[in-house]
Amino acid sequence: MNKNEQHIKNIFEIDEWKLIETKIHETENDFLIGESLTSLGNGLMGSRGNFEEGYSGKTHKGVYNGGVWFPDKTKVGWWKNGYPEYFGKAINSLNFLELEIKIDNVKLDLFIQKPTSFLRELDMKNGILSRKFTTLISDIKIDVYTERFLSIHNPEMVYIKYSIKPDKDCNIEIKSILNGDVHNLDSNHGEMFWDSVSSTKDETNTFVAIKTKPNNFGVERFVVAGAMNNEVNIKHEKKIEVKPLVGTEILKIFVKANENCTLIKKIAILSSRNHEKSKIKKIALDKLEKSDDYEKAKELHFAKWNKRWENGDISIEGDAKSQQGIRFSLFQLFSTYYGEDSKLNIGPKGFTGEKYGGATYWDTEAYCLPVYLSTAPSYVAKNLLLYRYDQLKQAKHNARQQGLDGALFPMVTFNGVECHNEWEITFEEIHRNGIMAYAIYNYINYTGDEEYLKTNGIEVLIELSKFWASRVHYSKAKKMYMIHGVTGPNEFENNVNNNWYTNTISKWTLEYTLKSLKKLKITDEIQLKKYELTKKDLIKWEEIQKNMYLPYSEEKKIFVQHDTFLDKDMMRVDQLKARDRPIVNNWSWDKILRSVFIKQADVLQGMYLFQENYTKDELKKNYEFYEQFTVHESSLSSCIHSILAAKLGKIDDAVKFYLRAARLDLDNYNDDTKDGLHITSMAGSWMSIIEGFGGMRVIDGILNFSPTIPKIWKSLSFNILFRKNLIKMQITNKEIKITNTKGENIKIKLFNEDVLLEKTFTKII
Amino acid sequence: MNKNEQHIKNIFEIDEWKLIETKIHETENDFLIGESLTSLGNGLMGSRGNFEEGYSGKTHKGVYNGGVWFPDKTKVGWWKNGYPEYFGKAINSLNFLELEIKIDNVKLDLFIQKPTSFLRELDMKNGILSRKFTTLISDIKIDVYTERFLSIHNPEMVYIKYSIKPDKDCNIEIKSILNGDVHNLDSNHGEMFWDSVSSTKDETNTFVAIKTKPNNFGVERFVVAGAMNNEVNIKHEKKIEVKPLVGTEILKIFVKANENCTLIKKIAILSSRNHEKSKIKKIALDKLEKSDDYEKAKELHFAKWNKRWENGDISIEGDAKSQQGIRFSLFQLFSTYYGEDSKLNIGPKGFTGEKYGGATYWDTEAYCLPVYLSTAPSYVAKNLLLYRYDQLKQAKHNARQQGLDGALFPMVTFNGVECHNEWEITFEEIHRNGIMAYAIYNYINYTGDEEYLKTNGIEVLIELSKFWASRVHYSKAKKMYMIHGVTGPNEFENNVNNNWYTNTISKWTLEYTLKSLKKLKITDEIQLKKYELTKKDLIKWEEIQKNMYLPYSEEKKIFVQHDTFLDKDMMRVDQLKARDRPIVNNWSWDKILRSVFIKQADVLQGMYLFQENYTKDELKKNYEFYEQFTVHESSLSSCIHSILAAKLGKIDDAVKFYLRAARLDLDNYNDDTKDGLHITSMAGSWMSIIEGFGGMRVIDGILNFSPTIPKIWKSLSFNILFRKNLIKMQITNKEIKITNTKGENIKIKLFNEDVLLEKTFTKII
Repeated sequence: MNKNEQHIKNIFEIDEWKLIETKIHETENDFLIGESLTSLGNGLMGSRGNFEEGYSGKTHKGVYNGGVWFPDKTKVGWWKNGYPEYFGKAINSLNFLELEIKIDNVKLDLFIQKPTSFLRELDMKNGILSRKFTTLISDIKIDVYTERFLSIHNPEMVYIKYSIKPDKDCNIEIKSILNGDVHNLDSNHGEMFWDSVSSTKDETNTFVAIKTKPNNFGVERFVVAGAMNNEVNIKHEKKIEVKPLVGTEILKIFVKANENCTLIKKIAILSSRNHEKSKIKKIALDKLEKSDDYEKAKELHFAKWNKRWENGDISIEGDAKSQQGIRFSLFQLFSTYYGEDSKLNIGPKGFTGEKYGGATYWDTEAYCLPVYLSTAPSYVAKNLLLYRYDQLKQAKHNARQQGLDGALFPMVTFNGVECHNEWEITFEEIHRNGIMAYAIYNYINYTGDEEYLKTNGIEVLIELSKFWASRVHYSKAKKMYMIHGVTGPNEFENNVNNNWYTNTISKWTLEYTLKSLKKLKITDEIQLKKYELTKKDLIKWEEIQKNMYLPYSEEKKIFVQHDTFLDKDMMRVDQLKARDRPIVNNWSWDKILRSVFIKQADVLQGMYLFQENYTKDELKKNYEFYEQFTVHESSLSSCIHSILAAKLGKIDDAVKFYLRAARLDLDNYNDDTKDGLHITSMAGSWMSIIEGFGGMRVIDGILNFSPTIPKIWKSLSFNILFRKNLIKMQITNKEIKITNTKGENIKIKLFNEDVLLEKTFTKII
Repeated sequence: MNKNEQHIKNIFEIDEWKLIETKIHETENDFLIGESLTSLGNGLMGSRGNFEEGYSGKTHKGVYNGGVWFPDKTKVGWWKNGYPEYFGKAINSLNFLELEIKIDNVKLDLFIQKPTSFLRELDMKNGILSRKFTTLISDIKIDVYTERFLSIHNPEMVYIKYSIKPDKDCNIEIKSILNGDVHNLDSNHGEMFWDSVSSTKDETNTFVAIKTKPNNFGVERFVVAGAMNNEVNIKHEKKIEVKPLVGTEILKIFVKANENCTLIKKIAILSSRNHEKSKIKKIALDKLEKSDDYEKAKELHFAKWNKRWENGDISIEGDAKSQQGIRFSLFQLFSTYYGEDSKLNIGPKGFTGEKYGGATYWDTEAYCLPVYLSTAPSYVAKNLLLYRYDQLKQAKHNARQQGLDGALFPMVTFNGVECHNEWEITFEEIHRNGIMAYAIYNYINYTGDEEYLKTNGIEVLIELSKFWASRVHYSKAKKMYMIHGVTGPNEFENNVNNNWYTNTISKWTLEYTLKSLKKLKITDEIQLKKYELTKKDLIKWEEIQKNMYLPYSEEKKIFVQHDTFLDKDMMRVDQLKARDRPIVNNWSWDKILRSVFIKQADVLQGMYLFQENYTKDELKKNYEFYEQFTVHESSLSSCIHSILAAKLGKIDDAVKFYLRAARLDLDNYNDDTKDGLHITSMAGSWMSIIEGFGGMRVIDGILNFSPTIPKIWKSLSFNILFRKNLIKMQITNKEIKITNTKGENIKIKLFNEDVLLEKTFTKII
């Protein structure tokens, strides 16, 4: 363990397919980390790994519905013109997990009745969370087994199984709850965000619907509705209670010694995003009625997870730690988003916590898109692009807020309107616009779907280019175009001039847009007018992109992060003291800003995107220069370093950074896993392996591989969906085997040499 | 009128000694401007020009006690390490003005009963505010005359006179109120800041005491107490009512037609800053008992104001607008602070509003100190220095919050602890530390009080130098010391590198500290140890100050505001559109930051302070360069430009900027006078005249004058207290007459030539 990483520990055991915990980690931080790590999601909704029966120690109950949010009063210090008026929050929603268990009138609470044995398992292969424990409650020993899953086969259904076996005759009372009376950890002053709509019951089912409170910002009010049914395998008395916001079923059961009392709680959860408010009750109750029984539902759910793994799994033999890391990353990423709904996106914490707010960051395009391109049908990646396309109008509004032309996609949003208020981020971290153009390029280059450029892409590219053209200025002093006052991906510097990454990607955007216009033959004034363009605009764009200033050091032969970066005190990361790390927790903001230390390296991010434009020697010089100053306090940093290190043959670095990316949360690297998982950066783990160790790259529409794996790995295997082919890679230290599992013969490149892949190709190395 | 200054208008008539309003300005903004401009203060407390009888239109009731404040929850967006926990606010306090008048049961309210004649006068010569109006209430015509003053002879006493003459027999009911149930316009969410302590009555007097609410920050709770007595010249029935927070005396009077009914309301206002809480009631009632009667008190108050003018007045013949501006500036400045209490300071809004919070900005040392040096006994300026000296411990705490050595005086404070939370200001506008050193130099240079350096000054200088030595870094690339990440006085740029002003004043501070240590013979290790210094530190300081990087343009022969300023789009102010002005209200923050437009010019501020270090040609080049980009949206900007313009013989510029400084609030230049007056910048008007048109400068302890006045001015006269002399300057376009009114013969310089001033010296020009 590095002296700077004293808080790093894993509370779950290393296992290739599971997270296994054999005791309750009672310290507050560890308990919350455990809850974060055992989160489940099915794209539509998700929940933290809370104990169903509750826990009187520190716990963070969290249940979330995708796309359901509240425009909370913004927490702003000093107002600036152009700030948005509200801050959109993913809010804690109708809690379907809750049970209250009483054994002979004593409440089951593992914080009080410490279990004599305890096992919690998150089975990633099948997408199910289970617990098995034994504890003494009064003088009754009970064995408990619980299971739950959020169906991915029928994503509005949740299933919970809860078995209790007492060693003596006893009375068990189970209160099964649908709770809309939920708090938000992230509210400004403890405000509640929900009103009651309806709470009803019939003989078998309970129904609760809640609605987000009114707001002054014209944002729609969401309804979330739940219908539940609870059955126990032993004869019991049942009572149903409902009050505003909360519905409860109370089941009283006499259980004989050593008899198994098993509750099946089935819940249908629907939201007004997908159903008419007036019909939601009927649909929920119908859905519940028609739903599969527990075992059948479980079987279908397992099958679908197994299918996902068939396409997307990455297998690493010989290093369980690395193996667990990548599977955990993919499991959580797929649990958050599997592309079914173009109105949803990938929030930074997914369904695992409520910090940060918003549902969409530039992470989606920069990190998540590549994963879905290679592991899911192409409509999934397309849906991610359409999400932004559909918000182009709002992006124009955002640009106008800053007095600029074209469109500015938001830093943080639910609906396309910016909802974050820090001038150095909201107004200045505009590089986010660059990756929007790159994502269009990336999608078309990968899928070959040229049609998308015409139907949607070009419109977005034009607005992005208009934005950049209005955001640059011409410096008479340097006779170049410049971009002043930005924050790059390295958020540890604010308001810098000529950030190399921002200038590079804006220059590239203009170039790509011009090329695309030519390709689509949108060149004459009549055609251009449709996009509110003239030939003069295109001439201007050409001039800007040709004369964009890109800071470079002749002496060091490196691209310079921004104008005055090299004037800094060039202290290295290895000169930092342990007590300084992470610097974001220990240093005053001004000290961080003027320091040389980098949260994630701007120049390397740019060189990664445009790898083909640089020689290996250029890459090496820049990598070695920036790496010594990079503290990787961004969850998005390590994976890029891992990929570039692999490319440079720095295999130890590549492994180190891969592990940091893949086990960021498992090992609590940045000491913040308790708040929830870093969902978007999970994609980075995949990138590290496929693009780093696998050396995958699509160049001019051709799939390339240049694999290299660490000595301790016996093998690395993965599948890649590429256009109509499913390609299986199996890499050992001795040979590379490429199998064309599905699709026609395909021309690919291996170590830059052409290979016509018919069925299987093997290269001894 | 300039196209960019469409909101500029004066609602009061031009008069040399008065503000005169002959109708009620009913539009909301104008009414509030009127209330701001007619504020009164006596150093200890003050109030806005609210109508005593209330007003149901938009009004901002404001009564403030110097040094009484509340540590409110800070309004912070995104927390940064090192931020202070609370925001100190000057709060609305016990309102002693309020009356409620009923004529035959109908409430007098000039918003309802529009007056047929109206006159409001602020008499600056005597420090009294009066109104005279006639209105019809039901069918009774009443003539009202009111007067009030906050005694500067007996500063805990307030006097109000209120006369009503009805044209018919009627019943008048007067409720005279001491109201502690006051709201704060600037509270975050409408919170109240006061609790009740005591409300009592006897036959003649009413007493109310209120106490600031408890806080979690360990800040003392203040008590403000008021005792009042109300007398009417006509037989009447009197009732006294008290409830928590509020005390009321109700007087019922039968008044005959054309009889004058006159109320005298006397109020003693005390605070726990000056009195023991347990005794405050007795002292307040005693004070009220023993207070002078109305006419006597008024006479003493007038006499003292007249005395102030005798020393401090500036007379301008031939330009009533200029004359009114400077008298208004001095009146408001002296009303806020006249140096009696070293625990008080000069808040940005004085007693005229509650915006901004805090009581002390760098304005005090940079702008106000020079005025008090020349117009008040030297203990007044010394008290301002001691105020900071007494807060050295807190300033050390502030530096530690940022991980730095030495002391950092706060941006905004009541007690020395920083209470402002914007990283670009709190952490980066550190030039404020520079003026603290300069103030010590300025005070000693002006007064000749060398002893102060030894007893207090050196300790402060050392801590300031320690701060700068820990805040600079050495750039290996440039082989110079640099200061990165600052905000200069020009707050329209944030987080810049090598701000010329900041680097210049920090270099000067190190130099001055080293010189002072030598002068005081604090040079050996034993002596140095007392200040936690070693010889090595001094060597380091010397090295830093000798190698401090100061951006300079060889091409333009100007000092450069900061590293990359000349790379900007060099658009000029005259190219701005009217709708852009003021840019702070119309542009997004990022646009302001990357624009070339300057709120107040850093380089000129530095050249102003260190005038003797630069040639006239250097000054001219820099003035002409920066002036074209300066929008003067800081209240502190125009005066510096006026002084430098006068020095450069640009007399039209000098007048223009003088008027902008002196009439900033009278003419509502920045469209924000409604919030209160720009008290500290009032000092700038004085500087413009004395240092600009008077050309006064103290160089190496010698008083210098180089007067020049605009053609339209018939004459300019003012007094200067300089050490033991009182010197009267009388300047016309033909001659300069200097009279040594008080003190021994003194050697001064006129236009850089020695003059031995015995009694009078006249120079024909």
